[in-house]
Amino acid sequence: MKVIVDFCVVPLGVGLSVSKYVAACESIIRDAGLKSMLHAYGTNIEGEWDEVFAVVKRCHEKIHAMGAPRISTTLRVGTRVDREQSIKDKLDSVNAKLVKG
Amino acid sequence: MKVIVDFCVVPLGVGLSVSKYVAACESIIRDAGLKSMLHAYGTNIEGEWDEVFAVVKRCHEKIHAMGAPRISTTLRVGTRVDREQSIKDKLDSVNAKLVKG
Amino acid sequence: MKVIVDFCVVPLGVGLSVSKYVAACESIIRDAGLKSMLHAYGTNIEGEWDEVFAVVKRCHEKIHAMGAPRISTTLRVGTRVDREQSIKDKLDSVNAKLVKG
Amino acid sequence: MKVIVDFCVVPLGVGLSVSKYVAACESIIRDAGLKSMLHAYGTNIEGEWDEVFAVVKRCHEKIHAMGAPRISTTLRVGTRVDREQSIKDKLDSVNAKLVKG
Repeated sequence: MKVIVDFCVVPLGVGLSVSKYVAACESIIRDAGLKSMLHAYGTNIEGEWDEVFAVVKRCHEKIHAMGAPRISTTLRVGTRVDREQSIKDKLDSVNAKLVKG
Repeated sequence: MKVIVDFCVVPLGVGLSVSKYVAACESIIRDAGLKSMLHAYGTNIEGEWDEVFAVVKRCHEKIHAMGAPRISTTLRVGTRVDREQSIKDKLDSVNAKLVKG
Repeated sequence: MKVIVDFCVVPLGVGLSVSKYVAACESIIRDAGLKSMLHAYGTNIEGEWDEVFAVVKRCHEKIHAMGAPRISTTLRVGTRVDREQSIKDKLDSVNAKLVKG
Repeated sequence: MKVIVDFCVVPLGVGLSVSKYVAACESIIRDAGLKSMLHAYGTNIEGEWDEVFAVVKRCHEKIHAMGAPRISTTLRVGTRVDREQSIKDKLDSVNAKLVKG
């Protein structure tokens, strides 16, 4: 089962700057070979369900290992069985409709 | 790693009533022996990371098998390594502060 | 336009215990006369759109006033124009299907 | 109070293709003169609290007017009072740490 996830980690107990932790997650996502798209309030990730959620878990483990005692993550999780759809497909589909007005 | 999750499934392509699908997920959660608390916009689940996410995956598989071609789920995912905290602990903690005013 | 919201505030820069801030929001919600249901990872609120979002804003202002320099909130926001539906209706609808099995 | 929001609308009761509704929201956001960044599972919006939430409400009204009887939206809502931070600042901050490795 393929999945597109939107993933946003919020480490608690480490002050106000969280970009260091977000960057560590980005590296984990890229090292896993998963397609992703970083935005200002999370990251899109596409791949097989088990691979994507293994990466999410690894991010929590890494952020704790970096010293954050508590994490509150939010995920949007999209699956569909009618057809395949990538991050790029979803963006193209909206952008095509924006151009046509 | 223990986790408390807040889980909300939205099946697409099956009309407006989604309670049948939510109830099917509740049954999966309870059959897995996980502690949970149903509310009007999702369900809290507590347990070991791998068990909780196996249940989330099983819910997606079940809802697709029930005929929903597309699902958009949202999850809040809380982990902490400083101490254990259950669904009940979190509620008690807020309620104690409400009573004291 | 009526709305049912699920609201979860995460204050940053104030350490690990967030229940004090959650309790302050609960008081604001109740003082506004809105129906709500607290759970372990947020609160359901029902009411007119403008009233509910005024309360959400007041919660952010209050939490900043209590000393939190940064807040990351998540909201689920449900509206429907086919019929009215309350927090209680949504819970009843799922629970009825759980009883029938 | 400035806010950065991540906004994802899911219309129900209109079949599987939701890009038409997402594109309509994008137009509303841009017409309002707000800075935004579209991604594959939502849109970042930055601006003053009242302006941003007026746009979110207008999107719900528009999607209902387009024929969707039910909508389930998710929002991440970030405010901070220690300093100003834009969508671009947040992305730059993570990307700088990725480059340094």
